[in-house]
Amino acid sequence: MAEKQVAENVVLVGKKPAMSYVLACVTQFNNGKNEVVLRARGRAISHAVDVAEIVRNKFLTDVKVKDIKISTEEVEGENGEKMNVSAIEIVLSK
Amino acid sequence: MAEKQVAENVVLVGKKPAMSYVLACVTQFNNGKNEVVLRARGRAISHAVDVAEIVRNKFLTDVKVKDIKISTEEVEGENGEKMNVSAIEIVLSK
Repeated sequence: MAEKQVAENVVLVGKKPAMSYVLACVTQFNNGKNEVVLRARGRAISHAVDVAEIVRNKFLTDVKVKDIKISTEEVEGENGEKMNVSAIEIVLSK
Repeated sequence: MAEKQVAENVVLVGKKPAMSYVLACVTQFNNGKNEVVLRARGRAISHAVDVAEIVRNKFLTDVKVKDIKISTEEVEGENGEKMNVSAIEIVLSK
């Protein structure tokens, strides 16, 4: 995840309500994408799992979880110190 | 996850400090288990990912993430109403 440029079919999950990200995923699939990647770090990881579950259970029941990867990223804290934060990548596919 | 009996090599991740669960995993592996399963629900999902990352990066570098599954479970809320909660299962193996 070193790249700065975020691919078109990637949804970065943060602090907004889950439905914002659900809508982003559904829009990507409806625009013809066969794969959508959800990415999140830290506390937002639980949120990304919620989004994936809502998409495939409530909106697009033909969508499957193709792959899930976890990793550790280094981020800079408020005082410039380095901190490790866990990250998740959930690949949804039709 | 309907079973009430929790298999020996399952670590249920909740609200304790991450290190408690890391220690539980490391102990299982040191007792000869080749696989340890981390399970968590709701907000504890992020915590389970932290635990998995700490185990494999800091303690047992020969341990790999073999599989990750996400699901939705139905739990009963305080007032008896049913709520859906996301869950994760991370399988670590040597």
